[in-house]
Amino acid sequence: MEQNEDVLAANEAFYDAFAAGDMEAMSAIWAKEADVTCLHPGWNPIFGRQEVLDSWQRIISSPDRPQIECVDAKADVSGISGKVICYEKIGGGYLIATNLFVLEGGAWRMTHHHASGLAPSSTLS
Amino acid sequence: MEQNEDVLAANEAFYDAFAAGDMEAMSAIWAKEADVTCLHPGWNPIFGRQEVLDSWQRIISSPDRPQIECVDAKADVSGISGKVICYEKIGGGYLIATNLFVLEGGAWRMTHHHASGLAPSSTLS
Repeated sequence: MEQNEDVLAANEAFYDAFAAGDMEAMSAIWAKEADVTCLHPGWNPIFGRQEVLDSWQRIISSPDRPQIECVDAKADVSGISGKVICYEKIGGGYLIATNLFVLEGGAWRMTHHHASGLAPSSTLS
Repeated sequence: MEQNEDVLAANEAFYDAFAAGDMEAMSAIWAKEADVTCLHPGWNPIFGRQEVLDSWQRIISSPDRPQIECVDAKADVSGISGKVICYEKIGGGYLIATNLFVLEGGAWRMTHHHASGLAPSSTLS
């Protein structure tokens, strides 16, 4: 279970970087060797490390940047791949996210983020 | 790249099983040993093989079951883990999906499905 905790810590570091608007930390979190991809809610998919970081830069530098709180994160590790599913508390509602990580240079680095809306009637289960 | 093609074939088999309403094929596609999870559009997350298959049974047996066409699938393999990002053409619009696979007993089996809506203004990129 220790690996699960390490992946959950990497997941938390991602949300901390976003909350702090810290692009240096955000850059450190995303994998440098593995392919990375990102599916922001309602956007077309983004492929490539630079393109993904550019998208976070745009979101973080926006005056409308939302506050996001990661809630009820659950991790699963298989080999050098880690998956986290968590809610994202944003405003009065929730998104749901799939976050993927890979063990790269001894550290868990993000390879994929997919966040999307929940139905208005959804509640935390 | 051969592994990418094998993962894309498994991804296609998933959509074929859905299109055919074939729960036996759907059951065969989902991993038996690895943990499985599923995020249907707008739903709370579903954890566990039986719970995930039950959800597909409900969707497949519904008179309102949509036709879904997988479009522009892109795969990435890292070790025994495979990731596919694809559009899902459904009615006049598109969803976007993250589908995860693991090599289990020599075959690529699904471990995660996350589908969500695109903004109305989105087009295939």
